[in-house]
Amino acid sequence: MWKGRFQQETSQLVQAYGESVSFDWRLYDQDIRGSIAHAGGLLRAGILTQEEFDAIRSGLEEIRHEIEHGDFEFKTALEDVHMNIEAELTRRIGPAGAKLHTARSRNDQVATDVRLYCKDAAAMLQADARQLQRALIEAAERAADAVVPGYTHLQRGQPVLFAHHLLAYVEMLERDLGRLRDAAQRADVMPLGSGALAGSTIILDREAVAKKLGFSAVTQNTMDAVSDRDFIAELLFTIALCGVHLSRLSEDIILWSSAEFGFVTLSDAHTTGSSLMPQKKNPDVAELTRGKTGRLIGNLVALLTLIKGLPMTYNRDLQEDKEPLFDTVDTLLGSLRAFADMMPHVQPKKERMRAAAIQGFSTATDLADYLVRKGLPFRDAHEVVGKAVALGVESERDLSEMSLKELQGFSAVIENDVFDCLTLEGSVAARNHQGGTAPEQVLKQAANARKLLQS
Amino acid sequence: MWKGRFQQETSQLVQAYGESVSFDWRLYDQDIRGSIAHAGGLLRAGILTQEEFDAIRSGLEEIRHEIEHGDFEFKTALEDVHMNIEAELTRRIGPAGAKLHTARSRNDQVATDVRLYCKDAAAMLQADARQLQRALIEAAERAADAVVPGYTHLQRGQPVLFAHHLLAYVEMLERDLGRLRDAAQRADVMPLGSGALAGSTIILDREAVAKKLGFSAVTQNTMDAVSDRDFIAELLFTIALCGVHLSRLSEDIILWSSAEFGFVTLSDAHTTGSSLMPQKKNPDVAELTRGKTGRLIGNLVALLTLIKGLPMTYNRDLQEDKEPLFDTVDTLLGSLRAFADMMPHVQPKKERMRAAAIQGFSTATDLADYLVRKGLPFRDAHEVVGKAVALGVESERDLSEMSLKELQGFSAVIENDVFDCLTLEGSVAARNHQGGTAPEQVLKQAANARKLLQS
Amino acid sequence: MWKGRFQQETSQLVQAYGESVSFDWRLYDQDIRGSIAHAGGLLRAGILTQEEFDAIRSGLEEIRHEIEHGDFEFKTALEDVHMNIEAELTRRIGPAGAKLHTARSRNDQVATDVRLYCKDAAAMLQADARQLQRALIEAAERAADAVVPGYTHLQRGQPVLFAHHLLAYVEMLERDLGRLRDAAQRADVMPLGSGALAGSTIILDREAVAKKLGFSAVTQNTMDAVSDRDFIAELLFTIALCGVHLSRLSEDIILWSSAEFGFVTLSDAHTTGSSLMPQKKNPDVAELTRGKTGRLIGNLVALLTLIKGLPMTYNRDLQEDKEPLFDTVDTLLGSLRAFADMMPHVQPKKERMRAAAIQGFSTATDLADYLVRKGLPFRDAHEVVGKAVALGVESERDLSEMSLKELQGFSAVIENDVFDCLTLEGSVAARNHQGGTAPEQVLKQAANARKLLQS
Amino acid sequence: MWKGRFQQETSQLVQAYGESVSFDWRLYDQDIRGSIAHAGGLLRAGILTQEEFDAIRSGLEEIRHEIEHGDFEFKTALEDVHMNIEAELTRRIGPAGAKLHTARSRNDQVATDVRLYCKDAAAMLQADARQLQRALIEAAERAADAVVPGYTHLQRGQPVLFAHHLLAYVEMLERDLGRLRDAAQRADVMPLGSGALAGSTIILDREAVAKKLGFSAVTQNTMDAVSDRDFIAELLFTIALCGVHLSRLSEDIILWSSAEFGFVTLSDAHTTGSSLMPQKKNPDVAELTRGKTGRLIGNLVALLTLIKGLPMTYNRDLQEDKEPLFDTVDTLLGSLRAFADMMPHVQPKKERMRAAAIQGFSTATDLADYLVRKGLPFRDAHEVVGKAVALGVESERDLSEMSLKELQGFSAVIENDVFDCLTLEGSVAARNHQGGTAPEQVLKQAANARKLLQS
Repeated sequence: MWKGRFQQETSQLVQAYGESVSFDWRLYDQDIRGSIAHAGGLLRAGILTQEEFDAIRSGLEEIRHEIEHGDFEFKTALEDVHMNIEAELTRRIGPAGAKLHTARSRNDQVATDVRLYCKDAAAMLQADARQLQRALIEAAERAADAVVPGYTHLQRGQPVLFAHHLLAYVEMLERDLGRLRDAAQRADVMPLGSGALAGSTIILDREAVAKKLGFSAVTQNTMDAVSDRDFIAELLFTIALCGVHLSRLSEDIILWSSAEFGFVTLSDAHTTGSSLMPQKKNPDVAELTRGKTGRLIGNLVALLTLIKGLPMTYNRDLQEDKEPLFDTVDTLLGSLRAFADMMPHVQPKKERMRAAAIQGFSTATDLADYLVRKGLPFRDAHEVVGKAVALGVESERDLSEMSLKELQGFSAVIENDVFDCLTLEGSVAARNHQGGTAPEQVLKQAANARKLLQS
Repeated sequence: MWKGRFQQETSQLVQAYGESVSFDWRLYDQDIRGSIAHAGGLLRAGILTQEEFDAIRSGLEEIRHEIEHGDFEFKTALEDVHMNIEAELTRRIGPAGAKLHTARSRNDQVATDVRLYCKDAAAMLQADARQLQRALIEAAERAADAVVPGYTHLQRGQPVLFAHHLLAYVEMLERDLGRLRDAAQRADVMPLGSGALAGSTIILDREAVAKKLGFSAVTQNTMDAVSDRDFIAELLFTIALCGVHLSRLSEDIILWSSAEFGFVTLSDAHTTGSSLMPQKKNPDVAELTRGKTGRLIGNLVALLTLIKGLPMTYNRDLQEDKEPLFDTVDTLLGSLRAFADMMPHVQPKKERMRAAAIQGFSTATDLADYLVRKGLPFRDAHEVVGKAVALGVESERDLSEMSLKELQGFSAVIENDVFDCLTLEGSVAARNHQGGTAPEQVLKQAANARKLLQS
Repeated sequence: MWKGRFQQETSQLVQAYGESVSFDWRLYDQDIRGSIAHAGGLLRAGILTQEEFDAIRSGLEEIRHEIEHGDFEFKTALEDVHMNIEAELTRRIGPAGAKLHTARSRNDQVATDVRLYCKDAAAMLQADARQLQRALIEAAERAADAVVPGYTHLQRGQPVLFAHHLLAYVEMLERDLGRLRDAAQRADVMPLGSGALAGSTIILDREAVAKKLGFSAVTQNTMDAVSDRDFIAELLFTIALCGVHLSRLSEDIILWSSAEFGFVTLSDAHTTGSSLMPQKKNPDVAELTRGKTGRLIGNLVALLTLIKGLPMTYNRDLQEDKEPLFDTVDTLLGSLRAFADMMPHVQPKKERMRAAAIQGFSTATDLADYLVRKGLPFRDAHEVVGKAVALGVESERDLSEMSLKELQGFSAVIENDVFDCLTLEGSVAARNHQGGTAPEQVLKQAANARKLLQS
Repeated sequence: MWKGRFQQETSQLVQAYGESVSFDWRLYDQDIRGSIAHAGGLLRAGILTQEEFDAIRSGLEEIRHEIEHGDFEFKTALEDVHMNIEAELTRRIGPAGAKLHTARSRNDQVATDVRLYCKDAAAMLQADARQLQRALIEAAERAADAVVPGYTHLQRGQPVLFAHHLLAYVEMLERDLGRLRDAAQRADVMPLGSGALAGSTIILDREAVAKKLGFSAVTQNTMDAVSDRDFIAELLFTIALCGVHLSRLSEDIILWSSAEFGFVTLSDAHTTGSSLMPQKKNPDVAELTRGKTGRLIGNLVALLTLIKGLPMTYNRDLQEDKEPLFDTVDTLLGSLRAFADMMPHVQPKKERMRAAAIQGFSTATDLADYLVRKGLPFRDAHEVVGKAVALGVESERDLSEMSLKELQGFSAVIENDVFDCLTLEGSVAARNHQGGTAPEQVLKQAANARKLLQS
């Protein structure tokens, strides 16, 4: 429409370079909802008649129906989803369509659409994160008696319940859910009515329009409103961090399913194999997810870098916000769903886990703590245990394989009850405090987590 | 202490490579607070006597006092701040010091210290962000009558109040403050008591220790607790986004203080110059701040990349979390303070602003809206304005310089009141809705923002 | 094919998550060239008969033809471009097709394809970078007499030729070309023959296959060969840095085309406008390009992050290398072409430039240098100029507007020839050394740059 | 010195915000070399007398000596290393010092210093990368007969020589060395003489100065010269990619030294342990190095982001280039040295490796290739092997444990020589082609790599 005052057509090359409809068509639903709500505002302000409003609404709903059924042709020459829909609406319903853009500009329109999209995306992500939490909790409950080595530095440290390990990821997802909620809340503010940058001289009831669209509030400064992309950055970060969590779970699963660890079996449906090497079950879902974390971080960098140093207000650079957003949301949705699909089929091999957990003096700290409880200062206790371990190394026996007498040779305070704390079960059970790996505590963690699933 | 079972000393090169005390000494206060609270837990659990606890507390306070006065020598051979303080404490008070590490490991200790640091840092950043908001609000109030061009694509669009432009940054900072609050809240959970990874068999009252330390809650899974660095990532992101906001303000100030824009004068105290070219006042604070955004984004990338793909639980990689954290916090504190210091001395050159705002048919949208209010459909209104502008271009006059008769030649609905909306004041005043640039609205925005300063 | 030993089908969700044909179909040409060359190797090694080889070659060429004409259907169930082509070939030509994968694995196959793609992409990018250089050189030559202010800190510094400014970008592109050449050279090594990871027991003449495929060398270690993605990372970096250069040119163009600078006019074909505000010509190409730099940097981060910490050799994470690669290559090709298309239509407004260049004592350094040439020490010269400038500020005159007598009042060594160096032409002409802004030097730079266009 | 025309002192806060001497003092040697060479240029141009030149040279050398012995006090108020040195020189030698800055500006001076630093840094990095290559080659030679599983997807694939695996890293470092050479070469161009941005009217012989400073060429465009930071970006990328390689080696070492893999023992001097758990030898060097890759990538992002969108020419943002540069160079130097120190003490546990390599039908591909060599088409061969493996799984025997008769039951072409290719030695030896894992080839790789050590 601004072509009137231009002498030349836009260069084909530039048109192809600048078009966005090939990716922003995905905002059609948000765009149509936004336009209907805006038309409602124009109606209440007396700019539109009831007939005009009805024509706009039904025209837009018809277009939405066609898009959803693949019957709508988007045109690159019309640049973006907004112009495609508006031009087609006007072609169909005439003059009323030409009134729709009153008191609105593409700047506040696109900001509104993307905020609606982010709210929708956050809701989907929350639901899928909950599903993965459910799968993890159920896997934890199924494996309630499995004991694995707990690692630091990828070196075996102390025995823990396998369920405890799985529930650590439920905690991470719980924090992700909190961040998603916060991000959705900060996206839940309507910029519509901010015009190109300064607001409009045609005064609409912005609060009423916001209510119709399901926004909790309206923006307080028009210049900020049309150039703000914080809500996208926050969502990209929140998702990237959730991806980092999944990459850690991926790493654990890749390790566990290696021949060397051999702690779990993955199902055929979630692996790829080789006709020649039957032992091969490649943990592709985990590997892909670990790899995809790179793109989540990359997308976040892309957005922050693109906003950095832009002067006020809208600059065309901001068009580049959508592809990283869509890609990031799609990627995490895919990962959450693939994991929720896979986790029920991750079979723990409890004997292998147990055999690994018992090795290497894994209950040595338990003996030290035992001595502390018997009254020895911590450093003295350490020394005693060090000597006992040295004997164990020499004689190739674990602490639990020594006789009471031998142990008493290191410290007279040791009594028969010492053996209770040198078994895997004893060791695990003794960590019976909030957050600890004792079965009682782990069950409580699982139960608490289950409750959160409803929220 | 683990050296007992090792045959060889750590290689000097490796020791230098792995030490962290050269940067983590900054956590001394958090470490000492954490140790005193932990000792309190040991006291209540009967592990320490009252005398032992008193010796630990006064020993630690003495060490803190010495560190604060530069009288404490940190040793690289002792690797980190935790070992430096504990070793020195034990050297001074003997056996009681050797008991302090009971039911604790460096893994939960460092996680606790860093969380305390993040809470402190967030509080400082919030205070400084408030100071900058205050400076912006005051600058806005001082310049209440200045009108500037509002830009999109760095092309003049519509006139706005300069105060409106400044308040857009107050909005951004307000969102930053919200994110800082959320980040601080998620950091506000105590991991102490999680031991190396599995918890402890010596049961302390974790809730009581948390209360002493000012934490609102305790972590719910020991494995997650010792390997979680989400709270750092969230703070780094929050700060990076705030930095992006300051980089935009920087860009605006750099433009405004150029000879071509000439909208503001910076004070001598906040610029550098040249003895030869007196017109030169380089906006260094703004340039440096724009540049520093790069490192804020880089630090965020460093942290996310380092966590990505790590298996459970603690891995030594995580030692690399502290330098980006400290650097990021220091950098934003510096930027916020430099801007709060500079803003009171940014002098608007109102005549230059006004002259720029009036040029280029900047009130053409106002005429279109006027016609819509008189009943013309939006597209017809556009056409009318387009013709009027064409005449203006031809005759080198602004719309406000045409006669009523001329204007009526384009549309009969135009009356004498049209001129009210073609002036800068008329144009600005007409955008009198929530968030709009009308003086009444801008004053309201400023007043609302002032109220938030207290929160 | 490995399904034989699996009990379950791959989960649909996992299949969708893991497929790559939706993006790696673009490698079809490289894949077919690679397969024909490999078949040649099998022929020479006696694994294939001449008939079998012929059937494979013509079958593959037929498939290529169909793909290029949109007549080939890629199937997601067949996962990637390699399996799609091989499966279809075998369906068509039978047994001979089943022999093609002898002594090859998908790991060395995909590495070969992507290296071929990178070589092709680098060649295209080099050609397009040359085109943009040509456009810049021509623009420089057309504007040979235009003088603009040279800026530091976006403050006017010293006058320079506009052509000099444009040629700075030719230098940057020249370095980019050098890096592209180096990147292409390091990609020019053939991994084919490395098998899954260990090589093959069927020995082919790898050098001969490489020669057929146009590779200069073969890889020297099979494990490295299948897991190496350095050549992609290097290309992504090289492109990102070229993007950073274009983002700087973009920033200059955005500034120059603002009303405040007003140094250039962009053509209608390379801008967007507004029907209401006729002065508006939004520099979209420049803004989009500046914004797209973000994604180029993001893609580089994505790749480096994804490779980081992967154990040897091939891991499925590496599948994620292709999308950032394709996106990065496409993006820079688009930017280079849009700029090469736009630059011939960037019209300098020489009077505006000149007016800006003369303001603000821009030749003050010239006076100082003049005094140094007359024998004054640099610091004394500075002091003299400082005083002259002070008078200029006071009396609102430029140095060139003062009388000889007045100037001699500051230093007796000043003679009538001083005025030659106080004009824009004199100032520019005096910087007559290699790389300087004197017309003679700038013409030489342009001529040298022209010569490089052929290389 | 520009303070003369300013009314106010620089704000203390701003001074602290903008100073760089706290980190750029490290450029003192480059700065002094640059100043002496520049003084030589001024001498030849007749600006300095021989006496003045001598005073400058000996004054600067004295200052260098003091800095190197810790006797020089840098002052924050003098902002950067350049002003600190020049001011002190002038204080000492008087008027001659005041002439040194003739025909030079801080913009070309700092660009020169940083290029000299990059050349020095690249040379050091090349030497240290060569040292690590040497350590890897020697480790490979020492372990010449050790066979390990080769992995894809962290699943055992085919047996390879441990030496082959180590030499893969020698290849990666060789590419890094190539990139370092290229980066150093592109840094090897002298910007001195470019002045603030436009060159100088005092004409020096730039080629002669460059020769004195050891530069191979001079820059060809002054505006580009003062704002170009490509050479830093290229070095940061090159180092980051080398860091990614070390992160992969780190991951391998962390896996190998886990209890589950148990392929290597690390020396006490390169690990940390625990007094309680004697089996614990934490692979800290590897973990730290893997973690530090994050900061290398972060530093690269910081620099690219900071340059992005800057207009010509020098902007103060560019001061932020130095800290990421220094940090990146220091970090990689540390990592290379720690690894070169550690590798000689990584002891392979050959029996564990061998036991792992033989498991899981690892020579199944060898049988298939055997059948192909006997004339079977690849797919038929696959089917035969699949059946044999199925029997193996059922009867819990490896292929090599079956009788000839049994094997012939699957295919009549099998003869007694089949067993040669089913052993680890036979499997490995058969991959006897360029780059393959056969001992002959691996020795050749090692020998070739040794030759490169001299280059």
